Amino acid sequence: MDIKVTPCSDNQRKPIPTDDNALGFGRLFSDHMFLMNYDPDRGWHNARIEPYGPLSLDPASMVLHYGQEVFEGLKAYRGADSSVRLFRPRDNYERLNRSCERLVIPPVDVDLMVEATKQLVMLDKAWIPRSEGCSMYVRPTIIAIDPFVGVAPSQTYLCYIIVGPVGAYYPEGFNPVGIWASADYVRAVRGGMGEAKTGGNYAGSLKAQAAAKAEGYSQVLWLDALERKYVEEVGTMNIFFKINGTVVTSPLTGSILPGITRDSVMRLLTHWDMPVQERMLTIDELFAAGADGSLEEIFGSGTAAIITPVKEIAYKGDKLSVGDGTTGPVAQRLYDSILALQYGTGEDPFGWSERIDG
Amino acid sequence: MDIKVTPCSDNQRKPIPTDDNALGFGRLFSDHMFLMNYDPDRGWHNARIEPYGPLSLDPASMVLHYGQEVFEGLKAYRGADSSVRLFRPRDNYERLNRSCERLVIPPVDVDLMVEATKQLVMLDKAWIPRSEGCSMYVRPTIIAIDPFVGVAPSQTYLCYIIVGPVGAYYPEGFNPVGIWASADYVRAVRGGMGEAKTGGNYAGSLKAQAAAKAEGYSQVLWLDALERKYVEEVGTMNIFFKINGTVVTSPLTGSILPGITRDSVMRLLTHWDMPVQERMLTIDELFAAGADGSLEEIFGSGTAAIITPVKEIAYKGDKLSVGDGTTGPVAQRLYDSILALQYGTGEDPFGWSERIDG
Repeated sequence: MDIKVTPCSDNQRKPIPTDDNALGFGRLFSDHMFLMNYDPDRGWHNARIEPYGPLSLDPASMVLHYGQEVFEGLKAYRGADSSVRLFRPRDNYERLNRSCERLVIPPVDVDLMVEATKQLVMLDKAWIPRSEGCSMYVRPTIIAIDPFVGVAPSQTYLCYIIVGPVGAYYPEGFNPVGIWASADYVRAVRGGMGEAKTGGNYAGSLKAQAAAKAEGYSQVLWLDALERKYVEEVGTMNIFFKINGTVVTSPLTGSILPGITRDSVMRLLTHWDMPVQERMLTIDELFAAGADGSLEEIFGSGTAAIITPVKEIAYKGDKLSVGDGTTGPVAQRLYDSILALQYGTGEDPFGWSERIDG
Repeated sequence: MDIKVTPCSDNQRKPIPTDDNALGFGRLFSDHMFLMNYDPDRGWHNARIEPYGPLSLDPASMVLHYGQEVFEGLKAYRGADSSVRLFRPRDNYERLNRSCERLVIPPVDVDLMVEATKQLVMLDKAWIPRSEGCSMYVRPTIIAIDPFVGVAPSQTYLCYIIVGPVGAYYPEGFNPVGIWASADYVRAVRGGMGEAKTGGNYAGSLKAQAAAKAEGYSQVLWLDALERKYVEEVGTMNIFFKINGTVVTSPLTGSILPGITRDSVMRLLTHWDMPVQERMLTIDELFAAGADGSLEEIFGSGTAAIITPVKEIAYKGDKLSVGDGTTGPVAQRLYDSILALQYGTGEDPFGWSERIDG
């Protein structure tokens, strides 16, 4: 399928931000967006890049009532040599299709979506920040648009991609965070849709997140919904624990988002011959490891921050401090290595970084 | 707050359907809609009724990514005397506010929402069908509209109400349905958002619903997520079982939608001195009651169909047939009584029916 491009007129263009320190995250979007429609007769069709602008949606659109929606998040990076790179984009679109499968949304063509991402990013490449740690965030989304208030899969869908510049998560170096394990709220349960990247998983998390913030913590550590004791994931990150020299993370039980950065972390650790284990870990075991000194590091992984060191966990009034509260060597090495891969300055044994400028 | 009304021009008006048998459900909407905005400075403001038309939403609007959305469903009825009635509208808006609380959305003023519903329904009263069993469906909705792709409660919201004519669910009398208990998928879990009327609960149900349809069943019977054995609710209905003369339904454990029709059913049964019990009931107990003859009736309750008799349950390859497959006397009496209340032809000991025409 060809992608029809309708560029902005000059007077439609927005000013490109010049201060990379003021970019923040998720509030600025570039001049164009990619769009594509689905109906049962034509399948996915009318792939196009147009000026960024509001969507016109019937108030009965199913996405607004029944949450039939999936999305992805990835980034485009500008290297010191001005090259432009994507990081594992096919993995994002393959995960998007797994989310579609769970939400009964027709799958997209991965090659087409990667091509659309490249064309959109290159058309708006002037928006990719140049500062270390800054990048262009790419948000592919699919929404159900039948104007029908009945509970059934939609017949029509809109797929779109928007992009925008985002700042460095840690412009002044790492800032280890405290996380708060929720005893009352859960994120997802096996048999539910926790492994899909879909709105409802995030909507359900907002109340616990507000509780965490009220206690002074930046994110929620989710425990499993069945026994309320196994650590699963954190807010918008997967989570890793280095205990007695082994890095442990929760297995993909069906209620956990299969993070692409999570996978990158595990494969890098294996590549470095560092022991890494997917296994169930209880919050009690974690606190015990903190007490007996075997807990060496905790860090989260995700697209936005890459690696987030954790300095403290709160649970039912108890607090677990990790080391001396500074960033551990494994977290630092992972961050440096993945960042180097993304900007094209490091060795890329896995072929994860894809240069897309000419 | 005053509601500013901007009526349609004559050429904006759509033709009002004349064949009540062809109305269906959820596909037709009237000429106007109610809208109201929220921001932190002004709170809910700019309450207005305008011509029905598309919403202009930024593609980054939070509802499209993180599913921060809640809704309600109620109906307006036209009596044989041309009177127009709502049924328990305050209960719907009070539940809307409980959904808001779970989804971290600012609550609405219940009195204002009831007033908005009345004004909108009366402005478009020519759209209310006159045939027995037909009505005007009312869909209040609140969506998060910050153009921000970050996981945090939105700062801005749009509340709207759309209305449209809907047909009789059973134009030729009851049609008892078969339901399919899902062994693989679950709808919600305690600590999640199952008791809120929000998109994610419905999005997560679509895949199991497709599986039920593929097996020839119209809806899914959900079992609890923790032990996978207690019957909780059905697709878009709560569910009741008459066993040994007592009508049993699941208690509101936190993972179940607190249906207003569910409440009407329980209060009517109590009013009639019929034993009714909220208690946990396992699927095995249900099949055993079917085998020993103590299972007398099964029926669902919901706004769309009021009462839906169930003739068969399938679970892991086993089938449970209920009685002779016809509608039981309790289901029939409840349906007739609630219908009479809604159309203003029956005794209304609870004051549930509210006449809104002049």
